[in-house]
Amino acid sequence: MNAYFDNNSATRIDDKVFEAMLPFLRAEYGNPQSMNTPGMFAKDAIESARAKVAAFIGAKPNEIIFTSCGSEANNLAIKGIAEANAQKGKHIIVSAIEHFSVLNAAKRLSQQGFEVTLLPVDGMGLVDPSVLKKALRSDTVLVSVQMANQEIGTIQPARELAGIAQGSGILFHTDAIAAAATMPIDVVSLGVNALSISATMFHGPKGAAALYVKKGTRMIPQIDGGVQEDGKRAGTENVPAIIGMGTACQIAKENLASASANMAVLRDRLINELPKLVKYVYLNGHPTKRLANNVDFSVEFIEGEGMMLFLDQKGISVTSGSACANKALKMSHVLSAIKVETALGQGSLLITLSKYTTAAEIDYFLKEFPPIVEKLRSMSPLYSHFQKTGKRMIAGPGTDYDHCDA
Amino acid sequence: MNAYFDNNSATRIDDKVFEAMLPFLRAEYGNPQSMNTPGMFAKDAIESARAKVAAFIGAKPNEIIFTSCGSEANNLAIKGIAEANAQKGKHIIVSAIEHFSVLNAAKRLSQQGFEVTLLPVDGMGLVDPSVLKKALRSDTVLVSVQMANQEIGTIQPARELAGIAQGSGILFHTDAIAAAATMPIDVVSLGVNALSISATMFHGPKGAAALYVKKGTRMIPQIDGGVQEDGKRAGTENVPAIIGMGTACQIAKENLASASANMAVLRDRLINELPKLVKYVYLNGHPTKRLANNVDFSVEFIEGEGMMLFLDQKGISVTSGSACANKALKMSHVLSAIKVETALGQGSLLITLSKYTTAAEIDYFLKEFPPIVEKLRSMSPLYSHFQKTGKRMIAGPGTDYDHCDA
Repeated sequence: MNAYFDNNSATRIDDKVFEAMLPFLRAEYGNPQSMNTPGMFAKDAIESARAKVAAFIGAKPNEIIFTSCGSEANNLAIKGIAEANAQKGKHIIVSAIEHFSVLNAAKRLSQQGFEVTLLPVDGMGLVDPSVLKKALRSDTVLVSVQMANQEIGTIQPARELAGIAQGSGILFHTDAIAAAATMPIDVVSLGVNALSISATMFHGPKGAAALYVKKGTRMIPQIDGGVQEDGKRAGTENVPAIIGMGTACQIAKENLASASANMAVLRDRLINELPKLVKYVYLNGHPTKRLANNVDFSVEFIEGEGMMLFLDQKGISVTSGSACANKALKMSHVLSAIKVETALGQGSLLITLSKYTTAAEIDYFLKEFPPIVEKLRSMSPLYSHFQKTGKRMIAGPGTDYDHCDA
Repeated sequence: MNAYFDNNSATRIDDKVFEAMLPFLRAEYGNPQSMNTPGMFAKDAIESARAKVAAFIGAKPNEIIFTSCGSEANNLAIKGIAEANAQKGKHIIVSAIEHFSVLNAAKRLSQQGFEVTLLPVDGMGLVDPSVLKKALRSDTVLVSVQMANQEIGTIQPARELAGIAQGSGILFHTDAIAAAATMPIDVVSLGVNALSISATMFHGPKGAAALYVKKGTRMIPQIDGGVQEDGKRAGTENVPAIIGMGTACQIAKENLASASANMAVLRDRLINELPKLVKYVYLNGHPTKRLANNVDFSVEFIEGEGMMLFLDQKGISVTSGSACANKALKMSHVLSAIKVETALGQGSLLITLSKYTTAAEIDYFLKEFPPIVEKLRSMSPLYSHFQKTGKRMIAGPGTDYDHCDA
């Protein structure tokens, strides 16, 4: 059998999403900017999708800007808001465990005269609100802290952090791309100025994401050209993908709560059973403030790459580190930031579930994984040293493996 | 019946393109950056698509960067190349009739300390190579002149212009988005450093475009984040759209020449027959250096909007001005640049053909259009004035309507 546990990289498109997209991949190919029947049909459809996306996160339709991917949405937020408000100051704050599309957008700004403060996180991945408070300066124009982490699943106190920024008149963006897979989102109660989501995280298609920008928030477009997206993002709209995202939002709004509850049960089964079957495994991230679909753990004495490849041979898809970074085969910046030992960081495995994940897939993993660990450890000089001497060649892990309450 | 003449805004997806995309909209949803079987399957597929796109324009696969739309490709070229070479100088040159995604990207650069020279064009829309030569300065880092115009279809002497820039060691980009619908493209013989194409112009899907960047050309990414597209464009790849673009390029490479020849016949039929059926119509653009799928004309005494809407009621889709601009309902910057009288510019109609355009569609247009003109003119005070006095309320048109040789 197969088991797909790479849902933080891409999810299966819901059949209803696919069906909604289908007409726009065939007969309805008009350009929404054209004042003719095919164009107006496409225009109406994307406006209907925009309303669904807005409803999903408690926004108004005219506060939704469609982009081509989550990374573009994050770049638009970070660069667009910082640049538009640069006359006020050139200091921005982002957490150290943001997705690369936030971190590297901030890095680009730092090459253009901005100063960037990286907020540290604790061993569970949490930003301390008092640390944010101290980091604020009179020239700070933007704070960006994610709702939940893409790798370790830690859920930040986004509402509290947004309140701190806004209490000082500073704009706040949150990357909700990983969070939107399992958490209800309400931009009004969060009190954020901008928020990113991406369709492929919740059974929508690749090629569509959205940036919520609160009315009145100044932002400079990053793709200049025509008048699409109210002048905030030029380029012919990817109509089928946008329609798909609208439907995915509608479905998620309806079933997210129950789907998340199911995912949490499966997640907890993994988290609870794994240490009974494999020794020296450690959960990365927070035991309770954790996405319902996230299990990230480190397996001592062996490397993530080997585990991924052996699992893959069994039809089990996982990843190690964030989807964008894992080809580098080094410890992710997230695990570094929570101070996981290098050797353990290299032995990390990320399992992300979706509403399509079944108990059978979890059972299959629990059956196939222990022999793989055993096999890899049998080839590991670190493990052999440990068995002979009882001593680790590295310092002990920063966090104990622990149970996780839904 | 229906007639779709808005192919410069969006084309119908070829059935074979759709079929190639289909698996990636359903079972094959892996993320190309993931080191597991679904991910590697997707990765192999986009690399195969990259090779097809490269072959279509005579490039090497590692010189192709996928973007989400033509506007993004143009922004990446203009901003990315100018910014990466700013230490050499901060002057760029673009033609006055470029697409908004080039013009407004240049405008954005002008807000960041760059100086932008707009190259004028003649009454047919042509850039004079000697004018480019004179515009070059020691601090010029980039010249961008399109291969062919998106509205009036005029084909520029891109190879000659590129040669002039490169003779002075200046980088040259060409927007080939409109051109790729009908013209063979070879980046090597053109001698350009960068070239943009967009799948939706030649029966590929929306959501995929490509920027050719010659090896060794320095360019700064505009979407920062992960390592996708060799670090030059972050963001999860829109796998189905990229696969579709690959197939669209493969098909175009095979049938572009014959399809263009057919389009030119239909185009010429329109151009030749129209003035026999409607008085006071004027072709905009060049009579011979013209895209095989382009007919752009002005109808005196009436407005483009009215013609569009009445044609639309007959199932005939056309546009007026470029797809991105026509909602402004003012004369396009292209018609302004070729010095079309304002009243005639407002009475412009753009008809763009594709390989699916039939002779029956042309006949249908030629049958339905003259009564629409008559009806609109019967309501036009300008026309009534002209009929009574024999005098126009505007100066005469800049160009005479003329025949067009394929």
